[in-house]
Amino acid sequence: MSLVNLSKQIALGIDIGGTNTKFGLVNHRGEILERGYLKTDKFEHVEDFIEELHKIVKPHLDKYCLDGEFYGIGVGAPNANYYKGTIEQAPNLRWKGVVPFSEIMSKKFGVQCKITNDANAAALGEMMYGAARGMKDFIMMTLGTGVGSGIVCGGNLIYGHDGFAGELGHTIIKPNGRKHWSTGSEGSLEAYASATGIAITAKKFRAEFPDSMLNEYPEEKINSKTVHECAIKGDPTAIEVFRYTGQKLGEALANFVMFSSPEAILLFGGVIKAGDFILKPTKRHMEHNLLPIFRGKVKLVFSELDEADAAILGASALVWENSSVQMSKINT
Amino acid sequence: MSLVNLSKQIALGIDIGGTNTKFGLVNHRGEILERGYLKTDKFEHVEDFIEELHKIVKPHLDKYCLDGEFYGIGVGAPNANYYKGTIEQAPNLRWKGVVPFSEIMSKKFGVQCKITNDANAAALGEMMYGAARGMKDFIMMTLGTGVGSGIVCGGNLIYGHDGFAGELGHTIIKPNGRKHWSTGSEGSLEAYASATGIAITAKKFRAEFPDSMLNEYPEEKINSKTVHECAIKGDPTAIEVFRYTGQKLGEALANFVMFSSPEAILLFGGVIKAGDFILKPTKRHMEHNLLPIFRGKVKLVFSELDEADAAILGASALVWENSSVQMSKINT
Repeated sequence: MSLVNLSKQIALGIDIGGTNTKFGLVNHRGEILERGYLKTDKFEHVEDFIEELHKIVKPHLDKYCLDGEFYGIGVGAPNANYYKGTIEQAPNLRWKGVVPFSEIMSKKFGVQCKITNDANAAALGEMMYGAARGMKDFIMMTLGTGVGSGIVCGGNLIYGHDGFAGELGHTIIKPNGRKHWSTGSEGSLEAYASATGIAITAKKFRAEFPDSMLNEYPEEKINSKTVHECAIKGDPTAIEVFRYTGQKLGEALANFVMFSSPEAILLFGGVIKAGDFILKPTKRHMEHNLLPIFRGKVKLVFSELDEADAAILGASALVWENSSVQMSKINT
Repeated sequence: MSLVNLSKQIALGIDIGGTNTKFGLVNHRGEILERGYLKTDKFEHVEDFIEELHKIVKPHLDKYCLDGEFYGIGVGAPNANYYKGTIEQAPNLRWKGVVPFSEIMSKKFGVQCKITNDANAAALGEMMYGAARGMKDFIMMTLGTGVGSGIVCGGNLIYGHDGFAGELGHTIIKPNGRKHWSTGSEGSLEAYASATGIAITAKKFRAEFPDSMLNEYPEEKINSKTVHECAIKGDPTAIEVFRYTGQKLGEALANFVMFSSPEAILLFGGVIKAGDFILKPTKRHMEHNLLPIFRGKVKLVFSELDEADAAILGASALVWENSSVQMSKINT
């Protein structure tokens, strides 16, 4: 296998969400050559979904890949089991039970198909193409509608014995705390540090402070974006929303640091648009909760990947993970 | 290198504590051929300590090891840095600053010397000789005077970017909770689930319940052993001490499970002598705090290693970690 051949190999990266599925053809350099999408929730049966996906992707594959250049498929999906190649009891998908996703995909496309949850895929993407290049120990936190995480230790993604490791959003950071709208757990990180959690905090705080600018918005407009707008304008309540969120996040991160002692924690997702309003208190409370031997060592950085591309790039990175082809060898 | 040679190779396992240092000559089967100890705190300078250690160990080495059969030294020590081979700012040792322990040992003994903290060593020992044989993902919790931990993911001990990973005893499980007597942190796992923490809980609870049997003991006799005695006799307050401790421990373990999704959590140390009094509430609260996909999967088991030997065996296991010689190949 010559270097010329390798550099022409193509991965299909797929990001499956509850509503939309996005895909891209990705080369070894992390360039997305072609992209597209289809509606996930249009398909009651996974077989029909894959049939349609194949129909859309095939012309692109024919265009970019000569014989043998289509190297494999990587998929980021909710509740994906890396070891079994299955999607299991995903609450936001119509396909119920245990879906042998990789197996059906492999048969249809004629190449290997690897699958993991979207946050793990994002961590792989950062390691191959983003802010974590060259790092062997880091944690990627995705702060969006929910809170996801991917953990890399010693250069390997942590999958755990069953493939489900890295659910840091569901760790309890405040016993008997805020009830989670979906899992029912009390005091999970996701209940505070997700966009959903921030909206809940903002609604609570603005009720306590009638003179807050946040009260100028109707209920349904209160979200991390509008809170950020008010914070920029100097509204103390909006600033306090992010400070409180950052405190909860920072306390959680300190615990994660004492678990795996990463070189960096990468933050990603819509919530980080609040910038220093959330980053500074997060850093302060993380440092405060660390044992002295961990202090001042862990970089807290924002993702370098374009948000629209990250999921596809991350999924495609699965294809090359642990393969004989390493980005370090190609990217020189 | 023939199998016969390998099976004759000997490791020196050393467990350094604040007061005593224990050592043993260990073969590949985990048999301790010879053991001994010296006082750690007698030596103001680490060089003198190593000089004395060498003097004591040398005759044993001469007896058991022919040329080349002394394979290496493994050390479990507080604040040990695996990557650098150093002991750094250990609060309970007289040797201050950063001590290049491995380097001095290697020079003195003429073989490689690897070092890690005692809890990591214990985890390696369990993986090679104990209850975690054959497991690739597990967490070892040492519940003694303090709470230590060693984390194995995908068959590898997690060291983190700086060698200090796995300080789960210092994760905060109750924000603004009980102040730690040494670190000053508030609400760490160690403040509740160590023997020291249990004694604090017991003193607090017995003051609230004047009719508790625990009030029959003088202050200095209140420890996990006496609380266990009262629990056996049916004292509800003593039973509540372990239930409360188990709740705190179980909540913490749930968070750890959602981090690395281990096959098992191994419990070790003096505190587990309380048996079901602590194990049952721990298990119940761990399960309660887990996401459904993790429930009913994680074994909570007691260590199989003899407590007196575990530290030495674990330290000796460092010698063979990641070496071409694997126990799985030898132990058949």
